[in-house]
Amino acid sequence: MDNGSVLFGAAYYPETWPESERETDIAMMKKAGMNVMRIGEFAWHKCEPEPGRYDFSWLHRVVDDLAANGIKTILGTPPATPPRWFLKAHPEAAILHPNGQREPHGGRRHCCSNNSAYRKESEKIIRQLGKEFGSDPNVIGWQLDNELYSGDCVCDECEKKFHLYLQKMFTTIDELNKAWNNEIFSQAYSSFDDIPMPVSGWQNPHLRQAWRAFTHDSDIEFIHMQRDILKEYTDAPIGTDMMPLNGVGYEKMCEPLDVVMFNHYNDESTLPDLPFWFDYLRTVAGSRPFWNTETATSWNGNNQMDQIVKPAGFCRVNSWLPIALGGKANLYWLWRQHWAAHELVHGAVIYANGRPLPMFDEIQQIAAEFKKAESFLNETEVSTQIAMNFTSLAWQMFEVQPTVRGLSYYPALMDYFYRPIEQLGIRTDVIGVKKDLSGYKVLISPLVMSLEDENLGEHIEEWVKNGGTWIAGPMTDIRTAAGTHFTDRALGRLERMTGASLLAAMPDSGRYVRSQWKDNSPFSANIWQEVYSVADGAEPLTEVCGDYKSLNGGTVLQKCRYGKGTVWLLGTFPSCADWQKLIVRVCEENGIKVSKKAGSVCVIPRKGKDRKGLILIETAHRPASYELAEPMTDILTGIEYQNTVELNPYDVLILEKQR
Amino acid sequence: MDNGSVLFGAAYYPETWPESERETDIAMMKKAGMNVMRIGEFAWHKCEPEPGRYDFSWLHRVVDDLAANGIKTILGTPPATPPRWFLKAHPEAAILHPNGQREPHGGRRHCCSNNSAYRKESEKIIRQLGKEFGSDPNVIGWQLDNELYSGDCVCDECEKKFHLYLQKMFTTIDELNKAWNNEIFSQAYSSFDDIPMPVSGWQNPHLRQAWRAFTHDSDIEFIHMQRDILKEYTDAPIGTDMMPLNGVGYEKMCEPLDVVMFNHYNDESTLPDLPFWFDYLRTVAGSRPFWNTETATSWNGNNQMDQIVKPAGFCRVNSWLPIALGGKANLYWLWRQHWAAHELVHGAVIYANGRPLPMFDEIQQIAAEFKKAESFLNETEVSTQIAMNFTSLAWQMFEVQPTVRGLSYYPALMDYFYRPIEQLGIRTDVIGVKKDLSGYKVLISPLVMSLEDENLGEHIEEWVKNGGTWIAGPMTDIRTAAGTHFTDRALGRLERMTGASLLAAMPDSGRYVRSQWKDNSPFSANIWQEVYSVADGAEPLTEVCGDYKSLNGGTVLQKCRYGKGTVWLLGTFPSCADWQKLIVRVCEENGIKVSKKAGSVCVIPRKGKDRKGLILIETAHRPASYELAEPMTDILTGIEYQNTVELNPYDVLILEKQR
Amino acid sequence: MDNGSVLFGAAYYPETWPESERETDIAMMKKAGMNVMRIGEFAWHKCEPEPGRYDFSWLHRVVDDLAANGIKTILGTPPATPPRWFLKAHPEAAILHPNGQREPHGGRRHCCSNNSAYRKESEKIIRQLGKEFGSDPNVIGWQLDNELYSGDCVCDECEKKFHLYLQKMFTTIDELNKAWNNEIFSQAYSSFDDIPMPVSGWQNPHLRQAWRAFTHDSDIEFIHMQRDILKEYTDAPIGTDMMPLNGVGYEKMCEPLDVVMFNHYNDESTLPDLPFWFDYLRTVAGSRPFWNTETATSWNGNNQMDQIVKPAGFCRVNSWLPIALGGKANLYWLWRQHWAAHELVHGAVIYANGRPLPMFDEIQQIAAEFKKAESFLNETEVSTQIAMNFTSLAWQMFEVQPTVRGLSYYPALMDYFYRPIEQLGIRTDVIGVKKDLSGYKVLISPLVMSLEDENLGEHIEEWVKNGGTWIAGPMTDIRTAAGTHFTDRALGRLERMTGASLLAAMPDSGRYVRSQWKDNSPFSANIWQEVYSVADGAEPLTEVCGDYKSLNGGTVLQKCRYGKGTVWLLGTFPSCADWQKLIVRVCEENGIKVSKKAGSVCVIPRKGKDRKGLILIETAHRPASYELAEPMTDILTGIEYQNTVELNPYDVLILEKQR
Repeated sequence: MDNGSVLFGAAYYPETWPESERETDIAMMKKAGMNVMRIGEFAWHKCEPEPGRYDFSWLHRVVDDLAANGIKTILGTPPATPPRWFLKAHPEAAILHPNGQREPHGGRRHCCSNNSAYRKESEKIIRQLGKEFGSDPNVIGWQLDNELYSGDCVCDECEKKFHLYLQKMFTTIDELNKAWNNEIFSQAYSSFDDIPMPVSGWQNPHLRQAWRAFTHDSDIEFIHMQRDILKEYTDAPIGTDMMPLNGVGYEKMCEPLDVVMFNHYNDESTLPDLPFWFDYLRTVAGSRPFWNTETATSWNGNNQMDQIVKPAGFCRVNSWLPIALGGKANLYWLWRQHWAAHELVHGAVIYANGRPLPMFDEIQQIAAEFKKAESFLNETEVSTQIAMNFTSLAWQMFEVQPTVRGLSYYPALMDYFYRPIEQLGIRTDVIGVKKDLSGYKVLISPLVMSLEDENLGEHIEEWVKNGGTWIAGPMTDIRTAAGTHFTDRALGRLERMTGASLLAAMPDSGRYVRSQWKDNSPFSANIWQEVYSVADGAEPLTEVCGDYKSLNGGTVLQKCRYGKGTVWLLGTFPSCADWQKLIVRVCEENGIKVSKKAGSVCVIPRKGKDRKGLILIETAHRPASYELAEPMTDILTGIEYQNTVELNPYDVLILEKQR
Repeated sequence: MDNGSVLFGAAYYPETWPESERETDIAMMKKAGMNVMRIGEFAWHKCEPEPGRYDFSWLHRVVDDLAANGIKTILGTPPATPPRWFLKAHPEAAILHPNGQREPHGGRRHCCSNNSAYRKESEKIIRQLGKEFGSDPNVIGWQLDNELYSGDCVCDECEKKFHLYLQKMFTTIDELNKAWNNEIFSQAYSSFDDIPMPVSGWQNPHLRQAWRAFTHDSDIEFIHMQRDILKEYTDAPIGTDMMPLNGVGYEKMCEPLDVVMFNHYNDESTLPDLPFWFDYLRTVAGSRPFWNTETATSWNGNNQMDQIVKPAGFCRVNSWLPIALGGKANLYWLWRQHWAAHELVHGAVIYANGRPLPMFDEIQQIAAEFKKAESFLNETEVSTQIAMNFTSLAWQMFEVQPTVRGLSYYPALMDYFYRPIEQLGIRTDVIGVKKDLSGYKVLISPLVMSLEDENLGEHIEEWVKNGGTWIAGPMTDIRTAAGTHFTDRALGRLERMTGASLLAAMPDSGRYVRSQWKDNSPFSANIWQEVYSVADGAEPLTEVCGDYKSLNGGTVLQKCRYGKGTVWLLGTFPSCADWQKLIVRVCEENGIKVSKKAGSVCVIPRKGKDRKGLILIETAHRPASYELAEPMTDILTGIEYQNTVELNPYDVLILEKQR
Repeated sequence: MDNGSVLFGAAYYPETWPESERETDIAMMKKAGMNVMRIGEFAWHKCEPEPGRYDFSWLHRVVDDLAANGIKTILGTPPATPPRWFLKAHPEAAILHPNGQREPHGGRRHCCSNNSAYRKESEKIIRQLGKEFGSDPNVIGWQLDNELYSGDCVCDECEKKFHLYLQKMFTTIDELNKAWNNEIFSQAYSSFDDIPMPVSGWQNPHLRQAWRAFTHDSDIEFIHMQRDILKEYTDAPIGTDMMPLNGVGYEKMCEPLDVVMFNHYNDESTLPDLPFWFDYLRTVAGSRPFWNTETATSWNGNNQMDQIVKPAGFCRVNSWLPIALGGKANLYWLWRQHWAAHELVHGAVIYANGRPLPMFDEIQQIAAEFKKAESFLNETEVSTQIAMNFTSLAWQMFEVQPTVRGLSYYPALMDYFYRPIEQLGIRTDVIGVKKDLSGYKVLISPLVMSLEDENLGEHIEEWVKNGGTWIAGPMTDIRTAAGTHFTDRALGRLERMTGASLLAAMPDSGRYVRSQWKDNSPFSANIWQEVYSVADGAEPLTEVCGDYKSLNGGTVLQKCRYGKGTVWLLGTFPSCADWQKLIVRVCEENGIKVSKKAGSVCVIPRKGKDRKGLILIETAHRPASYELAEPMTDILTGIEYQNTVELNPYDVLILEKQR
């Protein structure tokens, strides 16, 4: 394996197999073309069968055997599954559910990451691992823990830490009472110790928001602790493998880490939406690499057996997407079907009996293709001019204080804003709150309830002032950081910046607050209506024409000037067609070319110092086409394309412009 | 505000706003045309920030400021939200759920109304409030607590009180065992202390019925305690604002109160059914007033955001219905959107930022119209000749011992019996068990499982004997008061009164026990079949013609004589058309005129000593029409109508006959 | 009643009625033609009103009064409903749910069958009952307890017994850890006491399987204990009335019992599937009788009132099915509607008021028909040549480790395998794992995940070797007895027996792993695909033709030779038509005649030493027909049939060949 190669491998659980099986496994790994295995994440008991008695010899043999066959190791730390002896000695370390039940031993993540004994034991095993393998050249990366989301533990330590957390946030209880309007319902507290963990009953959304932030920060603290220990022993890159669940903050979590890791099990139907996450991970990672640490070769077989076999070609597209979109690794879960215990029927690379699954030949092909495209991938980067905001705080606010029944953050952002742009074939960065905006021409910020998030509002305003084009809304800038309404104005800064005035904000699917384009053609305004007066000098694109006379003359979409830049003030959820109409105009105005395209093609422009190309990936298992601006050659097949490229279902084309 | 004016206002929470905002609020209230605010129901902490330290100065200023601007106050007592210091001192006062969890602080109604400490503290704050404001002339009414439904608390005090309650009901445990057939399943108890609170497991329905009665009576006792304290200090009318949930007894609850209060959040789709509740409240109130204390200006925005914006005109119809149907007040929840905390996005009159919602101009119109119609409303009353029973005991019996899967009391009564009559444009009183029947020509009693409820059976029988027309059934008179079958007869009194004999009672949707009208046209007999023999001298209207030969010759609808009166014996749930056919015939026989009508118009005849008229309200947002018997003039517009009145969607016509 | 008569009766609860009602009841029983009543199952309190004070006098009077009128008694033991005094003295005997709640008194089965005090008290009352009635000639049978399924109690005694159970199964904890692959997730235990009861959280499926086996065995032990006591006092047949729920082992439970009992409440829609259970009970019973101890006369009226009235004729078909299929008793639940308490509205023979239900005349007819057919029934037996496996272990494995989302054992077996055969009019035995195979020509074994169940695999292999025809799969032989994958081979014995090799096993509904018959016509392969190579000398019937090229050339259905016999290797769930096509061919090859048939007729060939006939029962309430091989005469009507018999809805024909 050379340094620039794509990491290609799987999760391997040698602790559950006799050593005699290793030969078979390694032979098959080599046959599959893999160069890395992810090992050890749940093997605490095998490494420390009794408290303080460590045995890493077996693990050394695994790492060495793999290395001898050209396969490197990513080593996991095992706090997700403490051994039975730990919970026996510390029953209070098990997660305490609000109903009084303790999470039992037997699965994963049953311990509270705030528990001191658990933290202490975790530190010890991680330190030992670091000592043993920190300088092993065959361990090329470290994975901290596994998919850490603590959820709602209500143990004493959580409670104490939550109170300290609030005290740190507000200093005095009066400040807290004031910030959350605690005279409502006579909620006011006389000390921080009075505050309940808001996991049952009908609770103040600002309290719930603080609780959610606290639980996320507890998880983050636990991971960072693990990182700090390992850093004493290794120079290999360290990351933690996450899923994009519950609004846990990727940016904050990964800040001190060396590599951004991501696990996903997207199905056939959600595959076309998968680029969203890699567009996000790429910006979170910045100059660091990002790795796709888990995905299925075919079906996810958790205890519910949610999925079934995918079409041939799915595995290839699913494996190419992270790499094409900027990632440096793709690993499957799992190498070999477990011969027993949980997740018995999960898809894998080989069966428990050692025979290959039917997608094995596809996997061999992927390995070969990654090699073939290696220099192009290493010498180019994904190139974008547009960004869309995606923030943890917005996710949390949508959770704790719904504005419209059933409206969730990620699905709304995907369905109404990201997917229509992806369907246009326009590559977009998805960015958090800290990303520097200077490289972008256009920023799209729907559903960012509060701009009081890490100075996001200030940064955007400054960037617009200097010439940026900002599409703001709907539901953007309508709350303080704590999630309250503004009382001295309707919005944080948008009224001031645009000169428009918010006339009404209401849940309505365009039934009674209807809109039309200025040429009287219908404009589909869904879910929520923020109706604004038309600002001086602004160009209203639509007008309100519904039942409520006081709103007529207002608009849910206008183009306003601010400094050298532009603010598109959007107050509703347009239909796909209406939103695409707006995006195409904004692109035109900003010199961003939109090519002709049919079907579901993920379009990935890549540019380097000397090379330039375009990756096209069909994601919906249907024929599609894309209009090339200039002739290009497919690195994988050598075929030259020009004008309209016709794609077959699940085609992957790595097109490079002739040098 | 003059004494005969309609009370028009909203719920106002000054405890959650800086005093500096009051000026803005009051200016907007006056602009809206409001004359009353409902204040204080959750402000316990603001009035008693520490145990025993009272501060009412802020509240006096609110009441005085409002009064100075012509706005009166309805003052609430605050037991719904005890301050944190109370629960801290008395954690045992929190509701104990069957699963062992305590209801947490942070929402509303988290204390058990049977808890002694809670009662004691509630008494103290109410007494203080009474002393402070009992003689304040600007406090024109008192609201006790807020929407009190304790549900299933299983704390020690509830258990003890339940045992005492049963002891009072049965005197000896043997009586109880006998009444509930406790040899079944070896349930028999040897003492009252043995009896479980039947909130989990599979429990005897008679025990569950007693438990439900106990929890309702506990709530009623708690409210009456509050009333008794206030009566020491005030002459202003006292009520408690309820929702019609869980069969809680409106009649019993309101017995010692001065005003009947009602909260509702009906949606567009349920608006046509809303008159039911005012037809009921009017009879519960009798000579007392009833007030609509809560409704939304547009959307209900509880923590699930259940609703969206309504069409323009909805607010007006929704506000007119209680008044047209006999009420004296209509108040919105809430005046101004909360700037923070729970229910952040609920519809209101003005936004948190002080700007009006889009239905503000509609609200101004309503205020003006109430003034315009004031003398007509004051000098006339709603006039009816028909009554329909609606009883708490029937509701409870449907809950604790279902006779047909999924059949609930209120929906069944509405769908099959009330709505078809409302659609005919016939005004009906909805009455409980204590209402005097002497003024009615026709009484309709479906689903009254037991007539052993406050002598209801005796009263009806006497009234029929003297000439009344009674439509009895289905599912009426089939149980004892305790909810058991009769064993010495099939029915309590209906067989004896009519001479008909019950051949079978069975759950069947007319599939195998079919019926037809006597002319062989199909009669739609749904859900449940009580087949009777035809009584001597009775007129059977339908005949059974299904699979079961032993039932043929029987009928589910016959007209029987009793004394000077008539009993229509009905054994099934007819379709809307069949039920309307019957009702029209009964009206004809009783000299009750049924006008021609199309669409969804609520028709409200009003009569006074010297004046007479008809209010017509379109409730379904569709065109409709109504055939006038004589020319009338709309008080609101001055337009004169005769013959067919065409109504536009959400029209409100206050028609008066020329004097 | 003579010894060979069908037992015909109902459940009677005299403990809940005044003795004065008995005369009415007995008169009606005689009118109904009944000869047996089932009594006493819940009457513990009436028999032992205080601890140790017994009163059986009332029960003697009941048994004697019935006997005096020609009605025998089946007597129940009452542990299902211990009196309140027991639970008061032993609150720890109540089932402890995983959430910490105790099952309350008031329903049934609230005590843990592992609790020592409960066992002791149960023993005492049963011993007393045995002493009192063991030699009473009018007690012709004993029913142990009632529908015993303990479910998931987590009390201390359950925990201790579970640990002992595992210790007995594995001897050492290392063996257990090894068997369940406990290094996964660091689950390994250091002692049996460490092992959690796997009733919450995400648990090892092998642990869950062991837990399920333990809870079933606890129930079985409790029943066998009751049996052992009664055997000291009586020679009358003893059984326990069960429902086929949760995979509880009928075979193991009934092993030491004298009669196999069965309760069911099949509805109109599931009536055509009901023969399955009698085909199973008949083989479980073997030379013993089986009794249908509970079924509804019409609607089941549990606390949810799940059912409604059935068509006339339903009761007759529902009553005839168990008898025609080999049973010796049919009893209704219940005789007389309870006048109070739980299950108040359940269908019965007579109402609480003593009047007959509308199906009473049908019941009289059934009684007469049973008499008429008595000698034919006694002198013939149900005759079959085919068997299908149905095993408790397979049921448990489907529960604890789903292979495909939502796929449950019984519905899958019914929908895909049993029902299509029943629809062909082919009578099939349904057999467990211990049944001797020697009498069968064909054995069908779908979904038998593990053949390591009581030597099932060995027995089948031996039987095939000697000439049997075995249809094996899908999902058969794919697991060890503990539920793990094999690691040294793909299947336990099927590859070895057939010479075919398993290429892949995957969840897929034939979308990407498609199949066709050899003539290229489509073969519908659903849910799951086990693709095999074609064995040497085997006849492949279908070929795979889907997306995955490595599978093409394989097959999901082939006919292989083994010894003198045949193995049909099936790897998928065929459509009804495809499965019937296969079955018809297998029947033809084995000389089993398949008659022409239309509609839903249960076809029951019966043969005796000297007599022979065919019972035809229409089960779907629709017209149907059946082609007779030879002329026959209906015993009930005397009508002679030949060639095509046309059946009316719910017809029952007891056809006998002329002697």
